[in-house]
Amino acid sequence: MRATLIYGAGDVRIGDVPDPELRQPTDALVRVLRACICGSDLWPYGSKAPVEHGDRIGHEFLGVIEEVGSEVSGFKRGDVVVAPFVWSDGTCDFCREGLQTSCRHGGTWGRDGVDGGQGEAVRVPQAQGTLVKLPVGEESALLASLLSLSDVFPTGYHCAKTAGVNPRTTVTVIGDGAVGLSAVLSAKRLGAERIILMGRHKDRTDLGVEFGATDVVAERGQEGVERVKELTGGDGTHTVLECVGLEAALDTAFAVVRAGGTISRVGAPQYRQVSFGFPDFLRNITLTGGVAPARAYIEELLPDILDGRIEPGRVFDRTVRLDGVPDGYRAMAEREALKVMIEP
Amino acid sequence: MRATLIYGAGDVRIGDVPDPELRQPTDALVRVLRACICGSDLWPYGSKAPVEHGDRIGHEFLGVIEEVGSEVSGFKRGDVVVAPFVWSDGTCDFCREGLQTSCRHGGTWGRDGVDGGQGEAVRVPQAQGTLVKLPVGEESALLASLLSLSDVFPTGYHCAKTAGVNPRTTVTVIGDGAVGLSAVLSAKRLGAERIILMGRHKDRTDLGVEFGATDVVAERGQEGVERVKELTGGDGTHTVLECVGLEAALDTAFAVVRAGGTISRVGAPQYRQVSFGFPDFLRNITLTGGVAPARAYIEELLPDILDGRIEPGRVFDRTVRLDGVPDGYRAMAEREALKVMIEP
Repeated sequence: MRATLIYGAGDVRIGDVPDPELRQPTDALVRVLRACICGSDLWPYGSKAPVEHGDRIGHEFLGVIEEVGSEVSGFKRGDVVVAPFVWSDGTCDFCREGLQTSCRHGGTWGRDGVDGGQGEAVRVPQAQGTLVKLPVGEESALLASLLSLSDVFPTGYHCAKTAGVNPRTTVTVIGDGAVGLSAVLSAKRLGAERIILMGRHKDRTDLGVEFGATDVVAERGQEGVERVKELTGGDGTHTVLECVGLEAALDTAFAVVRAGGTISRVGAPQYRQVSFGFPDFLRNITLTGGVAPARAYIEELLPDILDGRIEPGRVFDRTVRLDGVPDGYRAMAEREALKVMIEP
Repeated sequence: MRATLIYGAGDVRIGDVPDPELRQPTDALVRVLRACICGSDLWPYGSKAPVEHGDRIGHEFLGVIEEVGSEVSGFKRGDVVVAPFVWSDGTCDFCREGLQTSCRHGGTWGRDGVDGGQGEAVRVPQAQGTLVKLPVGEESALLASLLSLSDVFPTGYHCAKTAGVNPRTTVTVIGDGAVGLSAVLSAKRLGAERIILMGRHKDRTDLGVEFGATDVVAERGQEGVERVKELTGGDGTHTVLECVGLEAALDTAFAVVRAGGTISRVGAPQYRQVSFGFPDFLRNITLTGGVAPARAYIEELLPDILDGRIEPGRVFDRTVRLDGVPDGYRAMAEREALKVMIEP
């Protein structure tokens, strides 16, 4: 079959790889209907050292069950399913607690003999714990929003949930990428009435306003901090959703969080040290978040999508076929596209 | 009147200071029945630059109302009261939220014309918001435990509460000082069934066991980490209560916290940077805590002390008169005493 391979920084190609087949009785085979490119795929796209044989890539997909192993129940050929961005058994203590990203028998797509998501098909390990059946057909108009359940939307939701967003909390969202916009939508869904979105790309923050942002701060650094302070009577907001992952974004988060408040971060940290000493100790600041256990949130978020109450799939502003994937990476890296969907 | 003055590192003296008197209609005058020396008083005792006129010190006390200003209601001459370690108005938004340490009109004892706690009497600003009336007489046998409500016990309790300790969470307490032992007692009170106390002073950890610790780990550093891992099937504990404030203690906290877990710190951080990058992001670790709003917890904890269910005052292992305060500082600094009570 054909799948996406990354050979190094800036070098993504479509190539032939072995057709997946069942290996364990807990596996399922899924033909991919939709996949997408993640902001985190841009880290290797920006810096990966060259490799001779390309590595598989992609961890967000939605597809149709082709075949299931003998120990997989509840799924049959033809079911449309979505896969979260890690696979997990669904039965260990971490999975039962809703922290499937720490599953004792789970793992990552595109590694150790497991297919990446950006291809024609995927062998899904621990299929019963990993996959969620979607009550739609292959031609559903909801596929984009349903695909967002694989990663980007639950990542924004994890950010808002772990920050403790509720109707009484004011919110700052840092970052107008697809995760930041998903965090806005999530904060709105959790009842926040004041959502300040910090971002400087007008087309993106415009979508953020449609998702529920009440204020947009386009300024960055100290200017941006002062603007948020102005908007909040000098105090900052109860919660800050840090959706970038760079040190400067986290510095901004500490500067705009109200005393007693919580910063949640879901942007993969591109730093090792956090400036978090005595002054923020005196202010009782909490730093939480982390990689999102998307699987934990899918059942909760699904009905809103099926009912049309929310459209998280609007973060996809371009769709490509497999051949267009390399250009999709380029477009996202150059911020020409917000998030690229793949229809293999 | 006589009060404690600090002239520099290692130089604490008792001296004469002006008798306090009401200055604002919101003030009260309190004659001190009991005060004490805090672990945090040892920071200036260890490193303060010399000053010509000594600075006032002490922020934990319990006493008798001598006089109240015209705007203070609910208190009268003769009432026994405890003061938390910051004063606060009790009416601003932060106070109403239970974050009195960020009160918009509050402040710190021993500064800006406000008396320190280690003296014969104190002018209490914002008395109505600050003080809590105690239903006991001046000779009560409970005074030590009631004094602990001023700082050390609510500090341990804040640590356990913000960490989310409950009957389903395992707990590691780092530090066998008075705050660490108070954290053990607090975790027990919140229902924790497994409380691992890390400390190497046997007399202190023995009290920790009486307070509820189920395991004691005397080893430090990597050895201590391995011991906690052994005790928890390799996982670490759901919550870690960091009651020291040094970088090494925080490093230990990150090493023994279970994936998805929470570290709460109440030891004043003697560091600026926290190693909290990608690996702990992948494990969804939360870092919370901060300076304890003691005032927020006093009403909740008081009944257990009055009923004799808990005896947090057992952390006081020495009592001195005012003249003995300098030697009390020395004894605590040399770890000869755990926590010194003052009976002026």
